[in-house]
Amino acid sequence: MGIEIERKFLLRNDDWRAAADAGTRMRQGYFAGPQRASIRVRIEGESANLNIKSAELGIRRLEFEYPVPLVEAEQMLDGLCEGPLVEKTRYRLVYAGFTWEVDVFAGDNAGLVVAEIELPTEDSAFEKPDWLGEEVSADPRYYNVSLVTHPYCDW
Amino acid sequence: MGIEIERKFLLRNDDWRAAADAGTRMRQGYFAGPQRASIRVRIEGESANLNIKSAELGIRRLEFEYPVPLVEAEQMLDGLCEGPLVEKTRYRLVYAGFTWEVDVFAGDNAGLVVAEIELPTEDSAFEKPDWLGEEVSADPRYYNVSLVTHPYCDW
Repeated sequence: MGIEIERKFLLRNDDWRAAADAGTRMRQGYFAGPQRASIRVRIEGESANLNIKSAELGIRRLEFEYPVPLVEAEQMLDGLCEGPLVEKTRYRLVYAGFTWEVDVFAGDNAGLVVAEIELPTEDSAFEKPDWLGEEVSADPRYYNVSLVTHPYCDW
Repeated sequence: MGIEIERKFLLRNDDWRAAADAGTRMRQGYFAGPQRASIRVRIEGESANLNIKSAELGIRRLEFEYPVPLVEAEQMLDGLCEGPLVEKTRYRLVYAGFTWEVDVFAGDNAGLVVAEIELPTEDSAFEKPDWLGEEVSADPRYYNVSLVTHPYCDW
């Protein structure tokens, strides 16, 4: 993290070109907000990452993930993210050759427990454990990004 | 980048706990949108980065920056960012001990040229070159994030 202190000016003429380098072409864009992509900072034990996911409904989404320093993740969570934060404990287990992740939520989402399985293709077959309940893949209320603005305690 | 294919379920009972690991605590948040922080993907020559800046007015802002693979930056620009993209050529030059960056915009912002200087403190003194015009640090129209939705050609 840095504090950026920058001043910006218009130009009076082209005289700056004599002293300038050859220039670098840049192309940049901005994420428009949660309607197109969700951008998440997560602290997971002692590590942290930044995750960008397309906001499509359903079970298939574009995903990018980058590690970030723990201290910077804390600064982003405290200063730049929307509150309240989503808190949960994630448990992993293997059943019939697939890894399941069970998220037990805390804070404003206490009482909510969901199980997730990551699959190689959309129509991959997998065996359902006895403890598994109703599928909610297509219900946007269960998106973690939704749990910030509309937590389980308000359902 | 990955395509994430994930299915999510509610749980019927606590029987999954017998097979699960000890669990990992997670705390996560989401960027709320451009009113609090701007999140930018930039391709600069052959490299690319993800940049997160607090959306405060004025010359002092929190900033985080992380390198990302070029191909992933292209995927994010094409698929997840708001269009049109901001295109510009950045020239660097040194004047009186400080580096200036002059951005010559193209596309919908063609005609706009701004010079920026990064300073160690908010009240750092610096010598103004003759080619420097009016200061626009406090004018949000000149923020690159604003140039997407309200480009120079519409001013």
